Amino acid sequence: MSAEEQQANTSLLERIQRPEVSKETAKKISLVEEQFARAEVEQLRQSTLLLRPLFEKRSQVIAEPDVRDTFWTRVMLNAPAEIEEFITMIDATILASTLKNLTVERFEIDEKGQGEPRSFRLTFEFRTGDENPYFENEKLVKTFYWRKQVITTPKGHKRTWDGLVSEPVRINWKKGQDPTKGLLDAACDLAEAEKKGGDRKKLPEFTKVIEKKDEIEAAENQEIDDDEDELPEDGPGGMSFFSFFGYRGSDVTAEQSATATKEDNERFEKLLKGEPVEGEDEDDDDEDDIEDEFDDIEIFPGGDELAIAIAEDLWPNALKYYVTDQAIEEVDFDDSELDFSGDEEDENDRPRKKTKV
Amino acid sequence: MSAEEQQANTSLLERIQRPEVSKETAKKISLVEEQFARAEVEQLRQSTLLLRPLFEKRSQVIAEPDVRDTFWTRVMLNAPAEIEEFITMIDATILASTLKNLTVERFEIDEKGQGEPRSFRLTFEFRTGDENPYFENEKLVKTFYWRKQVITTPKGHKRTWDGLVSEPVRINWKKGQDPTKGLLDAACDLAEAEKKGGDRKKLPEFTKVIEKKDEIEAAENQEIDDDEDELPEDGPGGMSFFSFFGYRGSDVTAEQSATATKEDNERFEKLLKGEPVEGEDEDDDDEDDIEDEFDDIEIFPGGDELAIAIAEDLWPNALKYYVTDQAIEEVDFDDSELDFSGDEEDENDRPRKKTKV
Repeated sequence: MSAEEQQANTSLLERIQRPEVSKETAKKISLVEEQFARAEVEQLRQSTLLLRPLFEKRSQVIAEPDVRDTFWTRVMLNAPAEIEEFITMIDATILASTLKNLTVERFEIDEKGQGEPRSFRLTFEFRTGDENPYFENEKLVKTFYWRKQVITTPKGHKRTWDGLVSEPVRINWKKGQDPTKGLLDAACDLAEAEKKGGDRKKLPEFTKVIEKKDEIEAAENQEIDDDEDELPEDGPGGMSFFSFFGYRGSDVTAEQSATATKEDNERFEKLLKGEPVEGEDEDDDDEDDIEDEFDDIEIFPGGDELAIAIAEDLWPNALKYYVTDQAIEEVDFDDSELDFSGDEEDENDRPRKKTKV
Repeated sequence: MSAEEQQANTSLLERIQRPEVSKETAKKISLVEEQFARAEVEQLRQSTLLLRPLFEKRSQVIAEPDVRDTFWTRVMLNAPAEIEEFITMIDATILASTLKNLTVERFEIDEKGQGEPRSFRLTFEFRTGDENPYFENEKLVKTFYWRKQVITTPKGHKRTWDGLVSEPVRINWKKGQDPTKGLLDAACDLAEAEKKGGDRKKLPEFTKVIEKKDEIEAAENQEIDDDEDELPEDGPGGMSFFSFFGYRGSDVTAEQSATATKEDNERFEKLLKGEPVEGEDEDDDDEDDIEDEFDDIEIFPGGDELAIAIAEDLWPNALKYYVTDQAIEEVDFDDSELDFSGDEEDENDRPRKKTKV
């Protein structure tokens, strides 16, 4: 290769690494990207309808007596890391002895396949009474709504946010059995207090949530050197899987979402027709700051991603995870340092250490 | 927890780790699994039709002058590891300076959405003449057919295999420029010789393929200590990405596949009706031995997985990979130890080392 050719080649390679695309082309790319994103939603809509009867059949099969007691716990422990990382030793023990069934419903899709396919409802069913030493609930129903919102960036630009929102779900823990150490209760108390009105940040329940979060974080930090177990006692941030039931996401009502969706669709239609759209040329560099304000009362950050992993991966692929042989770690539950004797007075205490039986 | 409770709990945990499912239930699970697998194919069929006009629009956008020269190379270098690992330094240099376009067509899906969606055709378009110092081809068209086959296991049981088959595609390399070091030519020669008939294993072209594979493997092993570059000169097994054009898969004709598909559908229909099916209860423990015989002439093992990654990930997500900023390694092509001066006589030699220009 001559020096000239080498030079031409190098300049092409630089362009591959740092392509310079005109604003006009960038807009075209962004429009096609949005069309693909909308087509993906349409695909989910179609597949929801297509797969519904199959999930029904699967539910019948896993209700067979030789499968039903172990199915969902096995699936959850065989799940990909993005789900399994949230299940601590204590969570696994609770789930293993109490979880009877799990159902995922994309309840906004009607019989004709119309509606928002990204909203879904997780229904966990549990053993009760003496068979459940941990909590009273027979069912925990966690509903996620796909909502859209028009937000104003710090610089005053209008942007659209969409994602999953949900209400905290209370668990009626038996005495001393709450692996969330009061955090889930605090989140539920705050949500109930907010419904009665008033400025969130002035509510005593708001302060309680912040305190509980700090306590758990502090407890987790202490344990980094302390913990000699092979298995993690803590999920990310010291959290129990059951704190997931406290996930909220953003505050967006169905009405706000409907309005924002209508506006957003109009914007999209204009773009498709090549008509000018207000704000399209504005700088996006302040978008990262938008959600910060809401983060401080979120007790389960990443709860939306966990919910999506359950709905889009665990649920459709449950049979695959069930028949997998190797993935479950050889969890030695006998040797675990747990105590569920229920004689703890302070729900913030971690379960006491126990000698090997 | 009492000793008794602990025992009951432990036994449940053991069942979760090693569930004992009756043969009857196992069959039901397997049938539902097959229904899900078939539904997945149906989803691919629907999405092929749904997305076709969008891919057409995208093709128009990426034909814009400020994008077209860099688009596909950038996408390929930003691709997930399962694709990028096959692209060596030499391959990247060749692709960067010659690749003009890539198209994926699921050509067996007609306008009504009927047909086999898992067959697809990859069309790579390249610069030619003086703009391409490496090879003469303006296009390389690699067609993958989804074929089904009834095979007999060593124990005499009938089993169904399905997967991608393809014919080797020859590249007309300019002198001294073949990064496959003659391997792709050998694979094409063998396929052509086989078409004229005769026992494959007695053909001189068969011996040549085995020799070439051995040479490349030996050359790769030598380099493990030798290689001081930061970037790998070799793909897995010492292979160039361009050897991918030699992938064959199994030998299954369209007729054999149609017959096997018909038989397999009949078996499935019987199972759905709860009718007995021959061979269902047989032991599966010898299935692993089935494909070994074909492996020795495969010049690009895993070519089917690479093809699927291109068709199912690279192609639909190309815009995402294009707009990604960080993934491309800072490849210093200037400093690469390549020589494309074309003065090598032995095509088996690796390109000679060159001092920094």
